[in-house]
Amino acid sequence: MSKLHLRISMSLDGFVAGPSQSVDNPLGIGGMRLHEWAFPLVQWRAMHGLEGGEVNESTPVIEESLANIGATVMGRNMFGGHPGPWNAKEPWNGWWGANPPFHHPVFVLTHHARAPLELEGGTTFTFVTGGIEAALEQARRAAGGKDVSLSGGANAARQYLVAGLVDEMEISLVPTLLGSGERLFDGVGDDLHGLELVRTVAAPKVTHLKFARR
Amino acid sequence: MSKLHLRISMSLDGFVAGPSQSVDNPLGIGGMRLHEWAFPLVQWRAMHGLEGGEVNESTPVIEESLANIGATVMGRNMFGGHPGPWNAKEPWNGWWGANPPFHHPVFVLTHHARAPLELEGGTTFTFVTGGIEAALEQARRAAGGKDVSLSGGANAARQYLVAGLVDEMEISLVPTLLGSGERLFDGVGDDLHGLELVRTVAAPKVTHLKFARR
Repeated sequence: MSKLHLRISMSLDGFVAGPSQSVDNPLGIGGMRLHEWAFPLVQWRAMHGLEGGEVNESTPVIEESLANIGATVMGRNMFGGHPGPWNAKEPWNGWWGANPPFHHPVFVLTHHARAPLELEGGTTFTFVTGGIEAALEQARRAAGGKDVSLSGGANAARQYLVAGLVDEMEISLVPTLLGSGERLFDGVGDDLHGLELVRTVAAPKVTHLKFARR
Repeated sequence: MSKLHLRISMSLDGFVAGPSQSVDNPLGIGGMRLHEWAFPLVQWRAMHGLEGGEVNESTPVIEESLANIGATVMGRNMFGGHPGPWNAKEPWNGWWGANPPFHHPVFVLTHHARAPLELEGGTTFTFVTGGIEAALEQARRAAGGKDVSLSGGANAARQYLVAGLVDEMEISLVPTLLGSGERLFDGVGDDLHGLELVRTVAAPKVTHLKFARR
């Protein structure tokens, strides 16, 4: 069966977003520091329509994380916009513009029904109100035998972790402190549901820790 | 000047001790799991009077952490025993028996005065009521030009981190969750006071992250 991969950047003190997240600052105060390791990379730049960039020890990690992915699941907070029912007059269509970097079906966990949103480049957002298992089932079907990426945010990641549904987890540990914000593992308990550390990669400004079931 | 080295084992979710710490279970529930990577090693066994053992990627990390150390600072909780004033009738002399594995002067942070305690093998415990800077100053003098080890617990480590007095920090990150307990970085804020990740070592059951000032 296709696997569910969680990949997420986390600070040394366990935060995946800073405090005071908002539409203007979706990663919270200091949250951008969790992603600075990625910005100079060729792949990150290419995904955002930019040329050039660096190749370093993070490159194969990113390549591996993008390989064989046929669909993505994300939480409502990651899709962003406003809380509560969708605003039909001023629809929020995600952070990523007209041509988002997914290029495959994306399933958004939400409590509020909404028609699918088809954007350029093969990215379709489907809004799932039936819970995490329904979203994963739809994503697996849409992935056509490939794997499914769980791209966050923290709340969605926690729900899948607690349910034991995550098959691979790449924690990109950033050697900095945020001090407050949203913790990945808050309320997850002491159980990784069989996930074990299988690979460590030291790269500039980040250490990639890959967990999988042996 | 001699440097202050913090070395401590931490779970993936940021805990350095489990919940419900007590005299019977000083590491708290599950806390022993943070140290399992060390138990099979030749050096750990030798320090505890045992022969044999493994040599693996953790070995040079431990060797480095023991090299050039002339004194140790620790918190009252790490020295252990009971809270409050010392019990002169049934004195608590630490967890380590008649011949503790330090073999150099150890300075214990406490609010309660007590005469120095000289044990076998060159370990002397001196109880310092003047605060973290006084303890560090005494330890530096006693170290005779060598470095000082800050061996925990969490509370003492946090105080030295917040004060910007830690010169090197080795986080032995254990790929497991404790879910609750004592966090190393709670209340430390978002400032590592110039400490940067300078070396990552992947070893069985642990990833060693060394921080220093560049």
